[in-house]
Amino acid sequence: MSDGPTIYASESLQVYLDDAASKKPAPGGGSVSACVGALGAALVGMVCNLTRGREKFAGAEDDIVTLVEASEAARARLELLLQEDTTAYNGVITAYKMPKETAEEQAARTAAVQAGLIVAADVPLEICRVAVEVCRLAKVAAGIGNPQAVTDAGIGAILGEAAVVGAALNVKINLGSIKDQAYVTRAAVEIEAIQAEAAALRAEVLTITLSKI
Amino acid sequence: MSDGPTIYASESLQVYLDDAASKKPAPGGGSVSACVGALGAALVGMVCNLTRGREKFAGAEDDIVTLVEASEAARARLELLLQEDTTAYNGVITAYKMPKETAEEQAARTAAVQAGLIVAADVPLEICRVAVEVCRLAKVAAGIGNPQAVTDAGIGAILGEAAVVGAALNVKINLGSIKDQAYVTRAAVEIEAIQAEAAALRAEVLTITLSKI
Repeated sequence: MSDGPTIYASESLQVYLDDAASKKPAPGGGSVSACVGALGAALVGMVCNLTRGREKFAGAEDDIVTLVEASEAARARLELLLQEDTTAYNGVITAYKMPKETAEEQAARTAAVQAGLIVAADVPLEICRVAVEVCRLAKVAAGIGNPQAVTDAGIGAILGEAAVVGAALNVKINLGSIKDQAYVTRAAVEIEAIQAEAAALRAEVLTITLSKI
Repeated sequence: MSDGPTIYASESLQVYLDDAASKKPAPGGGSVSACVGALGAALVGMVCNLTRGREKFAGAEDDIVTLVEASEAARARLELLLQEDTTAYNGVITAYKMPKETAEEQAARTAAVQAGLIVAADVPLEICRVAVEVCRLAKVAAGIGNPQAVTDAGIGAILGEAAVVGAALNVKINLGSIKDQAYVTRAAVEIEAIQAEAAALRAEVLTITLSKI
């Protein structure tokens, strides 16, 4: 064991799965949600890569190139968030260990805990934002991509939505302890809107997919 | 590059994601669905491992031990299916390359294609069966597990359902080419029932999760 954090993208898939199943603090449901979103983005990329450069789909070539860039950007972002989420709660843990003898110490500790909770909520909130983008990209892929890969576009949307709803649970559990009501309200409104959009996109993309198989 | 197939559990998570995004035939949406189901099973295992052996939850100890065994069995099965799906279509590809000059050759080729398609449908169908079991186990985990890990049980159910719906698309696309109507009807009825059960379980587990956070 090295002293540094485990970099999960470099670890084997087996280690990621085994660590997720263990009682280790990481990876937890937030990181796993980001991983699922990244898998969805990868499937959108696959649809593009099975479409681009083929004469039959030459009319969609420019849109496919734009789409593959967007899907790879979303995947890169979710791969970073998969890692970031494994340390997102560290600030809260450190803050809880701060001294709380004097009134000043108590105030400093409370402020540090609250700042840590906002970081812990911001990471899964960002996962929600990128994962709903995966659903949007999957819809484009289902529409213009190689129809032989349309189920992969469909699965991309399913996984984007699952990542949104999964990460949203981790936003919500942190919102329960955050005292900044303006932040809580803003985040709660945003995740509801993202979840509604993702649910609608999943349904739309499944309808497109089923119409093409 | 070795001549053997890539064993994805031993590869880095990065390689699995990169290969999923590429135009390589594997891993495709079926394997990725199995991976997502395995991640869901891992999260159910994590809830158990954060619950067992703690005095506070001693009353649930026996049920938790049963649950962790079931979740690890489901995960092991889905990890195998993640790999099996990467070769599930090989029989169809091989069959299409068979000679088709004479009537006998044509008949043998058609029979081999049809046998290959049934294998290609059976693998994602089995993914659906095990992934819905992940949803059932997530419901137990949400009910009796450490409430501090309840979002992981919720995410487990979300991922089990996503794996079901994703793999079901790959069953359906193969059913479209299978001529054995008895098989087609039986499989179609089974995946509809599994999808309905998974959707209901996801909704139930989300309700339990939100009531505890």
